[in-house]
Amino acid sequence: MPPIYLDHAATTPLLPAAREAMLEGFALWANPSSPHKAGRAARAALEAARGRVKAALGWQGEVIFTSGASEALAVAMTRCVQPIAAVSAVEHEAVLRWTGDAARLPVDGEGRVLTEGSLAGLVAVQQVNNETGVIQPLDELAEAVRATGGLLLADCAQSAGKIALPAADMVAVSAHKFGGPIGVGALLVRDWAMLKPTGGQERGYRGGTENLPGALAMAAALEAPRDWLEAAARLRQRLDDGILAAGGEIIAQNALRLPTIAGYRMPGRSANAQLIRFDGMGIAVSAGSACSSGSLKASPVLTAMGYPHAGEVIRVSIGRETMESEIDAFLSAWREIRG
Amino acid sequence: MPPIYLDHAATTPLLPAAREAMLEGFALWANPSSPHKAGRAARAALEAARGRVKAALGWQGEVIFTSGASEALAVAMTRCVQPIAAVSAVEHEAVLRWTGDAARLPVDGEGRVLTEGSLAGLVAVQQVNNETGVIQPLDELAEAVRATGGLLLADCAQSAGKIALPAADMVAVSAHKFGGPIGVGALLVRDWAMLKPTGGQERGYRGGTENLPGALAMAAALEAPRDWLEAAARLRQRLDDGILAAGGEIIAQNALRLPTIAGYRMPGRSANAQLIRFDGMGIAVSAGSACSSGSLKASPVLTAMGYPHAGEVIRVSIGRETMESEIDAFLSAWREIRG
Repeated sequence: MPPIYLDHAATTPLLPAAREAMLEGFALWANPSSPHKAGRAARAALEAARGRVKAALGWQGEVIFTSGASEALAVAMTRCVQPIAAVSAVEHEAVLRWTGDAARLPVDGEGRVLTEGSLAGLVAVQQVNNETGVIQPLDELAEAVRATGGLLLADCAQSAGKIALPAADMVAVSAHKFGGPIGVGALLVRDWAMLKPTGGQERGYRGGTENLPGALAMAAALEAPRDWLEAAARLRQRLDDGILAAGGEIIAQNALRLPTIAGYRMPGRSANAQLIRFDGMGIAVSAGSACSSGSLKASPVLTAMGYPHAGEVIRVSIGRETMESEIDAFLSAWREIRG
Repeated sequence: MPPIYLDHAATTPLLPAAREAMLEGFALWANPSSPHKAGRAARAALEAARGRVKAALGWQGEVIFTSGASEALAVAMTRCVQPIAAVSAVEHEAVLRWTGDAARLPVDGEGRVLTEGSLAGLVAVQQVNNETGVIQPLDELAEAVRATGGLLLADCAQSAGKIALPAADMVAVSAHKFGGPIGVGALLVRDWAMLKPTGGQERGYRGGTENLPGALAMAAALEAPRDWLEAAARLRQRLDDGILAAGGEIIAQNALRLPTIAGYRMPGRSANAQLIRFDGMGIAVSAGSACSSGSLKASPVLTAMGYPHAGEVIRVSIGRETMESEIDAFLSAWREIRG
C-alpha cells in the first residue's frame, strides 16, 4: 500500500504551479534592492508578487514578506507599538513564546475563545486552531478589541488560502501550509504605524535580502483553485461519520470547524500508541502540532478546553491530494487499532 | 552586448547543484519535526545537510539554520548571554541596527579594524567588508576578545564558502552569497550556552518549520569546487591594473582583500553618475551594499576609513561565472565614462 499522508496541517506538498514560480524566481536572481537593471527587474517581480498575494487574500493593507508565520508572529508580538494585552489559551507556541505575563483568554468546551477581561492592547488569537480545526469568532473579537483602542493580531497559518481572512489589524500567514514553499510567509498589517521598524528591507520592518522565488511561489500557491475544499468537506464528513460509527469521539464536534483539520479520540488508546500503529501501517497522522511533537505532555489546547481525554486524541488533516480511498483506508486502520 | 553582472556581493546566481538539491528537498517535503515516517526521513535529510554544512565550513560547533545572515546576526545580537560590548565602525547595517550605544571599534586608513577599548562582552566584526573586500584580522581579535572573557561574533556573509572561517565564537552565513538560494543561512555557535533560547525548532534557538530544501541547497552550494577563486584573483588583478592605468584609485589597496570584491574611485565622477552610465551600458555594479542602495549618503564604510572621496567610489564584485572578456568590457566602459 502506498503511504497515506493525513498530516497536511504540519506541512503540505509544494504545488506544481508554486514549484514553477520558484524556478522562475531563481532565473530572476538579482537582489531586489540593487538599483541596476537586473535588480529593478527583480524588484518589479517582487512587488507584483506582493500585489498578487494581497489580491488573492483580499487584503487592503500592507504586506511584509517574512520567512514564515513564526517570524511574522514574532515581528508583530515584539515590534507592535502597543503592549501585549491578551492571547487565547489555545494559541500555537509561536505566539505563546512571546506573551510573558499577558492574560490568557479562556475557551469554552468546544474550543471557542471567550472575550473576557481587558483587551486594551495587542490581542493575538488564531483564526483556526491547528489541532481541532475550530474557527474562532474573530470578527466579533476584532470589534471588542477595537472598542478598547487595541489591535487584533490573527494567526492565520492554518486558515489562509482556505477561508476568508478575518477583520484583524495584523495577520500572519505561512506559504507551506497552503501548497507554497517552506521558508516564506508574510505579516499583513493594516497600517505601518502599528509597528516599530528595526531597519533593513521591507520598508525597515524586516531585514534580509528579499526572497523573490519564495514570494512568487507563495503568490502562485494562493492563486491555485480552492474548489478542493468542497471535496475536503465531504471527506471530513466521511471521517466524522466513520469515527462515530466505530465508537470514537470528535473533538469540538459542535463548533464551526475548518474542513481540513479534525481531532478524534480513540477511547482507551493513547495517542502515542495510535501514532506508532498508524505509522507502521504507512499512515501519517499526528498528535498536536509537529512543532511540539517531541513533547509527551497532553495537548495544552485540549486541556484548555477542559477535555478530559486529551491523551487519547490524534489529529487528522486533509489536503488537496487526499482521496476518498485514503480516508477509507484510514478508517479501516482506525477500527483495527481500536480492536 | 549581453548584460554583464559584476555585483556578486549583492547576490549570486543559484548554482545548478544547489537548484537540484532544492528540487530534491521539495520531493522530501514532510515537516522534519513530524514523528511519522515521512517526517523522520525529512529530519534525517536535514541533519545530514547540517553535517555537510559543518564539514564544508570546517566548523566544530553547532549549526542553527536561519532564513539568512540577517536573521543569524539578529539571533546572535539579541539572544547572546553577554551584552554587546563593541562592533566595528564598518559593519553591515544588519549588525548596526542591533548595537544601540555599544562602542564602535575604529578602522585604519585601509579599513582594518583596530583593537581599542573594552572588548568584555559580545564583539561583532565582519570577516570581509562588503564594500572594500578587506579581510579583517579576526584571529588576532578573537584572542583579544577571549582574553577579556568576551565572545566574538563574525559576520561571514561575504567570506563563507570562499576563505576559511575565523576562530570566532559565533559565525553568521548566508547561502545566496555563495551560490545557494535566498532565504536560508545559518548561525554557527561554538556552544549552545552562548545564547538564550526562545523556544521552537532548532533546539529552541529558532522557531519556524525547518527549511529542508534550503538547507540541502546550502550544503550543495558549499560543496561546490572553489578553484574559481584563483581565476577571480587573476581577474581582480586585471581590474586593479586597468583601473590604475586609467587614472583610478583602488580602495584599501595595501590591505589583504578577498579576490572577489573591490572598490574603485573614478576621480571627479560621482558614484551615482557612474552607476547610471554603467547601467545604460548593461553593466551591473554598485555603490555600497544593495541593502542601503536607496540611500544617497556617502558610504559610512569609506567615511569611517577617513577616505576623502567616498562619493566617487563604486564596488565591483566578481563571481564564479565572470569571464575575462567581461572584465575587459567593464574597463573599457570605465575609461569611456571617465572621458
